[in-house]
Amino acid sequence: MKPKLTLKNIAKELDVSISTVSKALRDSPEIGEETRAKIKAFAKHYNYKPNNIALSLKNRKTKTIGIIIPEIVHHFFTTVISGVEKVANEMGYNVLVCLSDNSFDKEVLNMEMLANGSTDGFILSLAKETMQKGDYHHLVEVINQGMPVVLFDRVVEDISCDKVIIDDVSGARKAVQHLIDTGCKRIGLLTTVDYVSVGKLRTHGYKQALADNNYPINEDLILKIEEMEDSELQIKEFLEEQNVDGIFAVNEHFAISAVKTVQDQGKKVPDDVSVIGFTDGELSRLFIPSLTTVSQHGTRIGEESARLLIEKLERTPSPDDYYKTILVETELVVRNSTKSKI
Amino acid sequence: MKPKLTLKNIAKELDVSISTVSKALRDSPEIGEETRAKIKAFAKHYNYKPNNIALSLKNRKTKTIGIIIPEIVHHFFTTVISGVEKVANEMGYNVLVCLSDNSFDKEVLNMEMLANGSTDGFILSLAKETMQKGDYHHLVEVINQGMPVVLFDRVVEDISCDKVIIDDVSGARKAVQHLIDTGCKRIGLLTTVDYVSVGKLRTHGYKQALADNNYPINEDLILKIEEMEDSELQIKEFLEEQNVDGIFAVNEHFAISAVKTVQDQGKKVPDDVSVIGFTDGELSRLFIPSLTTVSQHGTRIGEESARLLIEKLERTPSPDDYYKTILVETELVVRNSTKSKI
Repeated sequence: MKPKLTLKNIAKELDVSISTVSKALRDSPEIGEETRAKIKAFAKHYNYKPNNIALSLKNRKTKTIGIIIPEIVHHFFTTVISGVEKVANEMGYNVLVCLSDNSFDKEVLNMEMLANGSTDGFILSLAKETMQKGDYHHLVEVINQGMPVVLFDRVVEDISCDKVIIDDVSGARKAVQHLIDTGCKRIGLLTTVDYVSVGKLRTHGYKQALADNNYPINEDLILKIEEMEDSELQIKEFLEEQNVDGIFAVNEHFAISAVKTVQDQGKKVPDDVSVIGFTDGELSRLFIPSLTTVSQHGTRIGEESARLLIEKLERTPSPDDYYKTILVETELVVRNSTKSKI
Repeated sequence: MKPKLTLKNIAKELDVSISTVSKALRDSPEIGEETRAKIKAFAKHYNYKPNNIALSLKNRKTKTIGIIIPEIVHHFFTTVISGVEKVANEMGYNVLVCLSDNSFDKEVLNMEMLANGSTDGFILSLAKETMQKGDYHHLVEVINQGMPVVLFDRVVEDISCDKVIIDDVSGARKAVQHLIDTGCKRIGLLTTVDYVSVGKLRTHGYKQALADNNYPINEDLILKIEEMEDSELQIKEFLEEQNVDGIFAVNEHFAISAVKTVQDQGKKVPDDVSVIGFTDGELSRLFIPSLTTVSQHGTRIGEESARLLIEKLERTPSPDDYYKTILVETELVVRNSTKSKI
């Protein structure tokens, strides 16, 4: 009994990357002619089908939706899954979840697995590495073949499909405006590196709010965190160097690390330093002080994504079809980590 | 294009439960002969295959593992998934995740979907409703047909298969012993209803620790919580009635609710009341006071489950095969919600 040939096997066998195999089989000019020919010959010899989307479309009505998310130990993504489940189940669909672990290769492999007849369509939030590479051929191809895809949260313009996003810019703006309204003068930003779309947008919102209020934009007050692993240490060092009285963090963890650092410095939250986070998880709600935060409504994002996808699946395609982008509004939830308005 | 016939469609069409259809198709004597005949005739007419496990086994080497978990917005289960992913990926397997939402019907439907040729085997933690009903026919059948299954955490004796469990009894015992060692005299227990196996085992450990120390067992000090939704309120009422100086909670949420209630009563944790939880999530680690807790090592449970399953998948079955149960040890992580030893 031979194992099934997959992109991964071929890549290993020919000692090239998964992405190279994937592109060569799609005859992409990005791959040199010789390599392309070699890979195609190998695949043909072992009777590998690039993928069975065509087959899957013919047999559509697996009544199953695939979700690919970058991380699982993450409150926001688990709430999105709950939202997808809710709507999908109401409408008679099953849901399969896969993790990309923020890896480009895993995302490509997940799509290969799910497009092979197990699902009717996808709901996906891009892996960090995929955004960094800017390589979306695996998605573009699936979409071109007629499989509906909905991107949520981490989306890019280069991919034409239905999207569900939150108003990251205005969410961040509201948060920073609240810090200004409650008397903060030197507001620090704890964000991610720019290629993560949401980090970039929230940074944009932070700067807009400062500009709206004629505050100077001081790049020294912006910390861009690359690796989550040592974020605590980076935040500690940053707050030791920079004397801030307000902090806006683009996620719950950065916010909690900030509160702890401030307290370790013998200062008080919010009396000496106010802190606002993003993502309204349990951590924000139950922490003492409970955190003022920008709520993303993950469940609602999941619900909207499922509705968009199922709508596409159940409707006969028409030339008038167009892609929709649904903007889910954020909400500032004011709790005890910020001062009362002046 | 007709939708594929599923257990759910048949159940709906014939106005019977999913479980009835599932059992009738397996010729279970639990279902009356007439109903059985009707369901089988219907399925045959529409060419429904009870399931394609046989087919799936023949084509084995999808190189995919299915995980079915009861809840997703739950730190423990997400860490288990991470652990499964880690080992599975190292060994060249993909992972598909499904949620049962603690519903028996959804668990049966998930298994139908995954056993239909998409996976080589399962890793599963039972839905609350399945344990309450004590109906495991869907699992027993899959196992009897030769598909490897590993149960973790919420397991039952009635199912013969590989299992990964934690030492719930001794974990609870260690926790309560620590409360006793640090001077607590009246120790309350916040647990779940008995049909959830882990709740029952932890209750058992609590009682053992009390008996070990010649403490009386007072049923008034035990709160069994049925619905998670109003657990906060139930804990509040319980702690208003019962004057305790130590609390052992079988999960993180109950523990946090207890700390908050104690503080709202104007008392101090741990000076007036010590609190120990179960599950070492971020909430326990980052909460102030940080929580003393019994760590379950979810990642390790996931890793062990994946190893057990893949071992079965890659070995030629032999008459000497037997089922293993791996016990993953818990660990008491002492933090600031309990007093120092006397």
